[in-house]
Amino acid sequence: MTITTTKVHNFSAGPGILPQEVLKEAAASCLNFDNLNLSLLEISHRSKNYEKVMDEARAIVKELFEVGDDYEVLYLGGGASLQFAMVPYNLMRENGSAAYVNTGVWASKAIKEAKIIGNTKVIASSEDKNFNYIPKGYDIPGDADYLHITSNNTIFGTQIKQFPKSPIPVVCDMSSDIFSRKVNAKDFALIYAGAQKNMGPAGSTMVMVKKDALGKTGRKMLSMLDYQVHIKGGSMYNTPPVFPIYVSLLTMKWLKKNGGIAWIEKLNQQKADLLYNEIDRNSLFYGTVEKADRSNMNLCFLLNKPELEPEFDKLWKDAGISGIRGHRDVGGYRASLYNALPLESVQVLVDVMKEFEKRLG
Amino acid sequence: MTITTTKVHNFSAGPGILPQEVLKEAAASCLNFDNLNLSLLEISHRSKNYEKVMDEARAIVKELFEVGDDYEVLYLGGGASLQFAMVPYNLMRENGSAAYVNTGVWASKAIKEAKIIGNTKVIASSEDKNFNYIPKGYDIPGDADYLHITSNNTIFGTQIKQFPKSPIPVVCDMSSDIFSRKVNAKDFALIYAGAQKNMGPAGSTMVMVKKDALGKTGRKMLSMLDYQVHIKGGSMYNTPPVFPIYVSLLTMKWLKKNGGIAWIEKLNQQKADLLYNEIDRNSLFYGTVEKADRSNMNLCFLLNKPELEPEFDKLWKDAGISGIRGHRDVGGYRASLYNALPLESVQVLVDVMKEFEKRLG
Repeated sequence: MTITTTKVHNFSAGPGILPQEVLKEAAASCLNFDNLNLSLLEISHRSKNYEKVMDEARAIVKELFEVGDDYEVLYLGGGASLQFAMVPYNLMRENGSAAYVNTGVWASKAIKEAKIIGNTKVIASSEDKNFNYIPKGYDIPGDADYLHITSNNTIFGTQIKQFPKSPIPVVCDMSSDIFSRKVNAKDFALIYAGAQKNMGPAGSTMVMVKKDALGKTGRKMLSMLDYQVHIKGGSMYNTPPVFPIYVSLLTMKWLKKNGGIAWIEKLNQQKADLLYNEIDRNSLFYGTVEKADRSNMNLCFLLNKPELEPEFDKLWKDAGISGIRGHRDVGGYRASLYNALPLESVQVLVDVMKEFEKRLG
Repeated sequence: MTITTTKVHNFSAGPGILPQEVLKEAAASCLNFDNLNLSLLEISHRSKNYEKVMDEARAIVKELFEVGDDYEVLYLGGGASLQFAMVPYNLMRENGSAAYVNTGVWASKAIKEAKIIGNTKVIASSEDKNFNYIPKGYDIPGDADYLHITSNNTIFGTQIKQFPKSPIPVVCDMSSDIFSRKVNAKDFALIYAGAQKNMGPAGSTMVMVKKDALGKTGRKMLSMLDYQVHIKGGSMYNTPPVFPIYVSLLTMKWLKKNGGIAWIEKLNQQKADLLYNEIDRNSLFYGTVEKADRSNMNLCFLLNKPELEPEFDKLWKDAGISGIRGHRDVGGYRASLYNALPLESVQVLVDVMKEFEKRLG
């Protein structure tokens, strides 16, 4: 059996796959947006046509997260990495403190920035086992200003399945699994996500924040780093990343139209089960992560015999698979099964793994 | 005579007009980038195809500005407004100072952020006449860490024609006239520009900085606000705004292909002359700015009889003109003649003004 195709199965870890119909609409908007005979790329962000996009993009996040008007939604430039600084800048009091759980590269970067701002305690970490599990049962200091966690770890392939009960406000970086499953958003004071992994293209970061969490630090703040300034400006204090926000809106509308979070959670579970079952069954592969903490978004696996990698690589490349090379911190393979990846693409990868076993097992 | 058309003449102040061929290529990249059978919106920024885009986008700025390897080019998120904070954060020493020239709304915002960081002196201002001229002949303090100026003032329609000789490093916000005319870039320690006015779509900001200007503040810095961190990361310390940078590259390639700065400077002068001549000739209009300081990018003009605005508005709208309503701080009209606006669009506006005079003059 030979598996070849011209279709690309896009398992990229991020920027990641987006729905075909979204890409088509994005392309069309570059030529003629909203029947204005103008491109979306050359109209004022203050035009009523674009203000509608921004309003919808802010509203649909609250709808998907099922929260009320005690939350505000912002789209900011600078990526989730800028949020690593903005979160402590806006939430850690002068002479206050924050508690962080270290579950990987991105959590570590968030901790590094928080330490520049103030007293930052790492209250749990899985660094001892190269981040292949999620720490549990740790104590959360009741006097810290907030707890920061990372819901899904793109590089190491772990995911928090049960969020900790916390006596202090919880901040969550959901960059790589936002809108992939049901979460109780009301349990969080702030959720942020770089769009480019599961909700849109690179260039904008969504921040959803509970209004009453803000304005308590006593810090004199730079305008662009102040959530309250952006809230007051309706997420248009300055020119926003117009096109990335529009494409994020299209992606969220696609999700909603197809059945919303309930639909995608079920589909994502099917996709992950299909691939994890094969990783566990296939005699040539093994998973890198403790089973209870396995991510449904980023599935990391290795070959028992790394010397067979070139042959496996040829097989999946011939099948039109793209982007499953593992991150250098883990090696091997990582398949990212973001919302827009169809089940059939996972089936193609599973078929390739089976074929590979048949040939070399 | 009736002037009607289906073509839109886009005089938007920003985000502003981009070349048609750039928009077509941008749209195509949303569907299939670089013959990968993948959208530019869903591939890794670490792919060799995108790394090439970033390398080219950084190199072409240095080529157009004719500077050498003592400068570095970055594309950052957050808009020019984030640079209002990053410039003092990176260039003003702890216990140092900076000198600012206040020529309008954006300069005022830059001053506000600098004041949060440290000792900021406004050494000249045109606020006394609602920013309708460029201050000249001011003293620049030799002990300040840098001088900050704004080359073109989008809202008030003024432009610096001769840059000040300065004993200290000069930082220039060129957001609204970058690559519109020849400047001696080597006279500047740092040039920044929000792309969305003259070099691309919204979502990325170009920063060109002389390396030896950095690393002198003594400040412990947040990573995302540290130019040196971004330089070290090749402008990919974190995921960059992929698509906006690509479209900026296309726009700069379009400029270069057509004859570069020398070509566009001449064309921009023709366009500005055509419209200013009509503003001065036409008995119904007058310009708001001192003639010596008139911007070639944003041309502000008012009706002698403001009560005639509804009739004038109908006429230009029928002619397919878009985006010439003035900013609320000036009122009346503002025509933005960015690089991609063809001479024929200016001619259409001039024809409309003549027709209006014929009817009502």
